[in-house]
Amino acid sequence: MPDSTTTVSAKQTPALDYIFHPRSIAIAGVSKSAPGFGGVSLGFLIACKETIAAGGSGSPALYAVNPKYDEVEGVRCYPSLLDIDGPVDHVISSVPAHVVPQLVEDAIKKDVKVIHFFTAGFRETGEEEMAAMEAQVVARCREAGIRVLGPNCMGLYVPGSGLSFMPGFPDERGSVGFISQSGGNAGDMVFTSAARGIRFSKVVSYGNAADVDEAELLDYLADDPETHVICTYIEGVKDGRRFFHAMKKAAAAKPVIVLKGGRTEAGTRAVMSHTASLAGSFEVFDALCRQVNAVRVNGVEDMVDLAVAFRFGAVPQGPGVAVVGGGGGFSVFAADEINDAGLECPVLPDHTQAELREFTPVAGTSVRNPVDTIALFQPPLLQRTLQTIGEAENIDVVMFHNGFNWGNARRTMAMAQDIDPGAYMDSMIQQMTAARDNSGTPVLVVLRPALDTASMEAVATFQEKCWRAGFPVFQTIPKAAAGIAATYRWQLGRRSG
Amino acid sequence: MPDSTTTVSAKQTPALDYIFHPRSIAIAGVSKSAPGFGGVSLGFLIACKETIAAGGSGSPALYAVNPKYDEVEGVRCYPSLLDIDGPVDHVISSVPAHVVPQLVEDAIKKDVKVIHFFTAGFRETGEEEMAAMEAQVVARCREAGIRVLGPNCMGLYVPGSGLSFMPGFPDERGSVGFISQSGGNAGDMVFTSAARGIRFSKVVSYGNAADVDEAELLDYLADDPETHVICTYIEGVKDGRRFFHAMKKAAAAKPVIVLKGGRTEAGTRAVMSHTASLAGSFEVFDALCRQVNAVRVNGVEDMVDLAVAFRFGAVPQGPGVAVVGGGGGFSVFAADEINDAGLECPVLPDHTQAELREFTPVAGTSVRNPVDTIALFQPPLLQRTLQTIGEAENIDVVMFHNGFNWGNARRTMAMAQDIDPGAYMDSMIQQMTAARDNSGTPVLVVLRPALDTASMEAVATFQEKCWRAGFPVFQTIPKAAAGIAATYRWQLGRRSG
Repeated sequence: MPDSTTTVSAKQTPALDYIFHPRSIAIAGVSKSAPGFGGVSLGFLIACKETIAAGGSGSPALYAVNPKYDEVEGVRCYPSLLDIDGPVDHVISSVPAHVVPQLVEDAIKKDVKVIHFFTAGFRETGEEEMAAMEAQVVARCREAGIRVLGPNCMGLYVPGSGLSFMPGFPDERGSVGFISQSGGNAGDMVFTSAARGIRFSKVVSYGNAADVDEAELLDYLADDPETHVICTYIEGVKDGRRFFHAMKKAAAAKPVIVLKGGRTEAGTRAVMSHTASLAGSFEVFDALCRQVNAVRVNGVEDMVDLAVAFRFGAVPQGPGVAVVGGGGGFSVFAADEINDAGLECPVLPDHTQAELREFTPVAGTSVRNPVDTIALFQPPLLQRTLQTIGEAENIDVVMFHNGFNWGNARRTMAMAQDIDPGAYMDSMIQQMTAARDNSGTPVLVVLRPALDTASMEAVATFQEKCWRAGFPVFQTIPKAAAGIAATYRWQLGRRSG
Repeated sequence: MPDSTTTVSAKQTPALDYIFHPRSIAIAGVSKSAPGFGGVSLGFLIACKETIAAGGSGSPALYAVNPKYDEVEGVRCYPSLLDIDGPVDHVISSVPAHVVPQLVEDAIKKDVKVIHFFTAGFRETGEEEMAAMEAQVVARCREAGIRVLGPNCMGLYVPGSGLSFMPGFPDERGSVGFISQSGGNAGDMVFTSAARGIRFSKVVSYGNAADVDEAELLDYLADDPETHVICTYIEGVKDGRRFFHAMKKAAAAKPVIVLKGGRTEAGTRAVMSHTASLAGSFEVFDALCRQVNAVRVNGVEDMVDLAVAFRFGAVPQGPGVAVVGGGGGFSVFAADEINDAGLECPVLPDHTQAELREFTPVAGTSVRNPVDTIALFQPPLLQRTLQTIGEAENIDVVMFHNGFNWGNARRTMAMAQDIDPGAYMDSMIQQMTAARDNSGTPVLVVLRPALDTASMEAVATFQEKCWRAGFPVFQTIPKAAAGIAATYRWQLGRRSG
């Protein structure tokens, strides 16, 4: 991975930490109402306003800048940065590329600390003139002590610091950090993982990486006490040596999950159009990840699954998986899929099978493993089933397979038992928690996706109850198996490393 | 795949067709309200009642049998089969195993044509006594001319004939046939594929396959004029030679998608617990599928994707895929993922790129392929984009990537344009249809899954509009790519075969 640009040492400029804690934010070039990218720039304003409102006192001030308006969405709008009374630490620029030089001069006069250029149309266009302009803008900022995010990126989401780039992101802070060369993927990761209990310390979409880059961000997150798991989406690496050292340090400190864009020839070409990065040799990149024990994945969905596995501690001590629930056909797939993932689905010990048979009817069930049982629908027996299995000496993790889609059949049973669905779920969580805590074996939940809006509400409710009680939740057995297998291999790598 | 049981020739008993068109249905042993399997047996009654109500005149009569009740869910209930006045063609048995012999004698007197034994607890328990009882029951039925479905299965779903085994299945008939050794997988397939426009001609869950088996059912579906695509879930094969001939005939007639349970050692063990089948050598099974050009998949989700691809004609003439929409990061993944699937994502010809540039802004977009453009959100330009790409000489299929999750940003844009969401979707469908029809290139839709209930309604609405207009819909680029790749390879196999 050769250096593809002239690297300016990060030591010339202040440390990265203050970027995440601005005293005030100004959104320059915000459009009041416009289709296409105008909607996105308005989204920055709404997103920051929401995040600031949720943050309470100590949150930064928020300003809009556009000579056309007096206010946008209730936020006061100024003709230029220089017209704002108080200090401005963080500028989000949505102005067109040709207006950028003037904005930079204003920012220098205003003693701005960081400019995030949402503005695209620079180096990634493939035009020499625009690449030169990008270099000039960045050089001018850096010589004035202003750090640059982007250009061509969505910037920062830091719950608690008033920074956000998409309306609707969760208000809560969390322990997962994410650096992403794509704003779309960053938004996707935040939205997709929210329902599974993932909350973020810092999310950085850094685009063309003209100044702040992947190595500096990795280095920062490795030391960040708020961040326990690091996720990364990387298209190209600016400086192979710096990147290797940053990865090595980060992966030694905490789990690092790596999603690489541009694994194939066509993907490499798309990377060039997207952020003008050189994707480099994928083989070299992959070898680097293996060497430092970073966990590589191939898509955002897989990254969410691994973040869930690491965040909720689904790191088993051995490869033995028990599967409970889901029916006979699912049991067959589950056994195949756990084998496919490189784990084991061993026959339960005779004494465990005998114990299960004490309360499991013979017809239509199996207590071997996978365990196919109707005891799960009879609340007092759920705990007994999960706990008995968790205590088996060849089982390192229990997968509890459940769903709420077969609405009518399920509702019929609940009606028959005169049970309130919310209370039924709470009882399940209590039993799962007791089984996990008494057996000392991790329990994870495979919760089938909803097929209609009624099921979606049930699934969402149960899912939140699960992760709030500390259970990792996956959508399918293969996803759960891949998650466990990765954390298991990661742990073996740490032991041997 | 050796013959594991004594095979009785199917010629001794009437042909299979009348099984799918009963004059009346009796559900024996239905439980009025009970947890566990009682809920499932009640579900049969509710499901058939729903299906009969939707079918109108000519639908079969429905009876319940249980000495404990006079009616169940508004259906008249008789003490025994013999107390029913009219003829009974189809019996669904939920009675316990020890009551089965009496039920069979009653059925013989009543001149019943087929008994579906939901009843489990026979051969799959692994107990010799129960295996012997299963053999006796089946032998007694066959000598009396009664065909047997199961035991240990969910039976039939035939929209239009009043047969169904799960409440909430679609009323509409369709062109996909499915034979499944697991009722859970059959239910899963029907529910999961419903929202993607898949409707069924016949679904058969056949469990232990003590009488009616996979070979006979395949043979039937190969000739069935209502069935254009055949899906199968098979755990074990009773008679390798018969199965091979049935598969060969079926796969020569129409696309056959095969899901095999018991691919690994653990899966093979689960198969034995589930339906007492011998899973056999997976290598032999896989080779057989390749030889006859049947398409093998590894899970129900994959089977749904392929059913969608074949049903909605996503069979491209060549390997060239264009991807449109989704943003820069998604474009990178898409290119990688299409390559992973063995297809191509070629650079668009210069003249196509030039045409696209006439209405696509430079900043933040790409017209190379994947095409990352905001023109998609400006209705008149969607058709122009898709059609221009579809006309490119190196493109055989266009993937249109879309979603409704980024709620606020999307709503902001829609508000800005004063557009009603339903009308906006209809305009999209019109433009997609025109682009497809004018260019003669298939267009398929990648529609990201919903993350909240509001998005779910939008996704469900748009999805239905898509498939009703004949567009196949997939959830992700890898799933779409796998679907296309499989239909493309299938077509190459037909040409060479």
